[in-house]
Amino acid sequence: MKRHFFYALIIISFIACNSNENKVEANSDANKTKENKVYLASWAEGARSRIETWVKEVTTAGSAGFIPVADRIAVFDNDGTLWLEQPIYTQFLFAIDNLKAIAPLHPEFQKDPVLKGVIDGDMEVLKKAGVPGLLKVINASHNEQTEEAFNNAVKKWMETAKDKKFGKTYKELIYLPMVELLEYLRANDFKTFIVSGGGADFMRAFAEEVYGVPPYQVIGSYGDAKYEMIEGKPVVTKKSGAPFVDDKAGKPVGIHRFIGKVPVFCAGNSDGDQAMLEYTNGSKYKSFCMIVHHTDSVREYQYDSPSPIGHLESALTAAKEKNWMVVDMKNDFKKIFAFQ
Amino acid sequence: MKRHFFYALIIISFIACNSNENKVEANSDANKTKENKVYLASWAEGARSRIETWVKEVTTAGSAGFIPVADRIAVFDNDGTLWLEQPIYTQFLFAIDNLKAIAPLHPEFQKDPVLKGVIDGDMEVLKKAGVPGLLKVINASHNEQTEEAFNNAVKKWMETAKDKKFGKTYKELIYLPMVELLEYLRANDFKTFIVSGGGADFMRAFAEEVYGVPPYQVIGSYGDAKYEMIEGKPVVTKKSGAPFVDDKAGKPVGIHRFIGKVPVFCAGNSDGDQAMLEYTNGSKYKSFCMIVHHTDSVREYQYDSPSPIGHLESALTAAKEKNWMVVDMKNDFKKIFAFQ
Repeated sequence: MKRHFFYALIIISFIACNSNENKVEANSDANKTKENKVYLASWAEGARSRIETWVKEVTTAGSAGFIPVADRIAVFDNDGTLWLEQPIYTQFLFAIDNLKAIAPLHPEFQKDPVLKGVIDGDMEVLKKAGVPGLLKVINASHNEQTEEAFNNAVKKWMETAKDKKFGKTYKELIYLPMVELLEYLRANDFKTFIVSGGGADFMRAFAEEVYGVPPYQVIGSYGDAKYEMIEGKPVVTKKSGAPFVDDKAGKPVGIHRFIGKVPVFCAGNSDGDQAMLEYTNGSKYKSFCMIVHHTDSVREYQYDSPSPIGHLESALTAAKEKNWMVVDMKNDFKKIFAFQ
Repeated sequence: MKRHFFYALIIISFIACNSNENKVEANSDANKTKENKVYLASWAEGARSRIETWVKEVTTAGSAGFIPVADRIAVFDNDGTLWLEQPIYTQFLFAIDNLKAIAPLHPEFQKDPVLKGVIDGDMEVLKKAGVPGLLKVINASHNEQTEEAFNNAVKKWMETAKDKKFGKTYKELIYLPMVELLEYLRANDFKTFIVSGGGADFMRAFAEEVYGVPPYQVIGSYGDAKYEMIEGKPVVTKKSGAPFVDDKAGKPVGIHRFIGKVPVFCAGNSDGDQAMLEYTNGSKYKSFCMIVHHTDSVREYQYDSPSPIGHLESALTAAKEKNWMVVDMKNDFKKIFAFQ
């Protein structure tokens, strides 16, 4: 699988980055005046106007582009579209931390040199093990746990783990203008969904709190699950089999499977989102497609085609051909994070 | 698979029933006074009171049983719980009719003796072919179609096909008190989901119109799907592979996969619903479990344990042990269908 090599690149770049712990001082001036009921306040004028013009057209009864409420389906990628994805997907960091956290309950982990290495903090072992080692870590840290135990583990981790560059929890590393956009669309009777390559169970543990998106509107990658009664208690346990990868052509399939309607709004940031952008573009209604372009090396990261994470190349070409909105984060976002 | 033998029983009983075309005159007095804003109007007093008491308790802020709005998840089985399932699941009737409808576009069907037999109206061929023949009909009538084409086919069929006993379209054969219950729960800020062994794509084509349940709140059985660009148009095509059967232990797995929260309300009518009833019963909140018991041979059908369709035996025993509400359709429903 090509995907495996892609992950190999990621994990290797992550291990390389891990030594550069260039911590940035946290700016904790998040408690400034709230712009209540003013939507899209962190968007620069031109970008804001483009979004508002479309929303007004499709929500105004009698207008040529009117979309009935029942069909106002908006889908958002997560990593790099709603929150930080550099220098490595947040879920991988959770995988490593959670492996360590549950290790005392799993003496069998000690028998595996890769898992033991990660637990002991020896990342060289993981680096040498390549993709099979990485998948082993993800599997051991995510599966054979009840949905409740896994959900609690993610919630707890999200309260405490901090990003090295910003010194902030990952809940704080969500893009303020995009959260405003979610709220603005919901205020106009859109249903907002997350459609991401990330794990569904991982995202569902925080999406309701940080994005206002309930678990049943979070679509992601997932594996098998098993229902059984254990000591008189009904439990669902996460299993590693039958993986569904909600990325690339998997995204429209996930939308078909979970939503059952073609979206009319779609936001992504990488080539992995191109299929769902095209799918949205093919709606019978006048749809809106958006690409979040990471152009701000100072306030966040600057990357597109050379990056293995958030690789953006063919979707950017498609955006130009099809007049999709390309958000220039440096100029179109007055703020990127709420704390800035 | 045991399931196959179960289907064999169903199809054989269906073919047997098919000769008894005891058509009943349609009662078309559906336009009586509307009981606006009075919920549960078709429920008898005792049953209605039991539901209302629970809803009031769990939705009253400060009460011991209070359930926050975000966790008010209600799940309903479809066949036999929200609409008619006798003498055979409605979806099987659609499968046969749709096979005939699409046959002109599929000359390859003529090469298969079973498909040709069904297209020509020779049900004996299907009877002899048993389960493999039945699965062939379902596959040929449901798959290798775009989601749009399939959705339109179901919608069209639902407008025209009529049940032999009642002389009504299947949209009219939904249980009025259960639709009132869906509305009552939604009015109390519950999210209502369908969790059924029926095909997700089949149910989604009508659930929004007849139950007020949008496609993304309809969970059912499903197969694979493929996304591709065909002549510049993005399409999702239904495929037969990787089936997920949303029945029995599959129901809690489906709830985990699609909803990501343990329900607090569950209604079913057969042993196939027992696992999701148990799962709901295990909620951390004070949950409500309901079994719709088919006790009315005059206004609908009377059946439970002897019937292969809607087989109800162990779930009824569990209901007694766990004090789940067992709805006696004959006495608890003032009306079963709106037209009665």
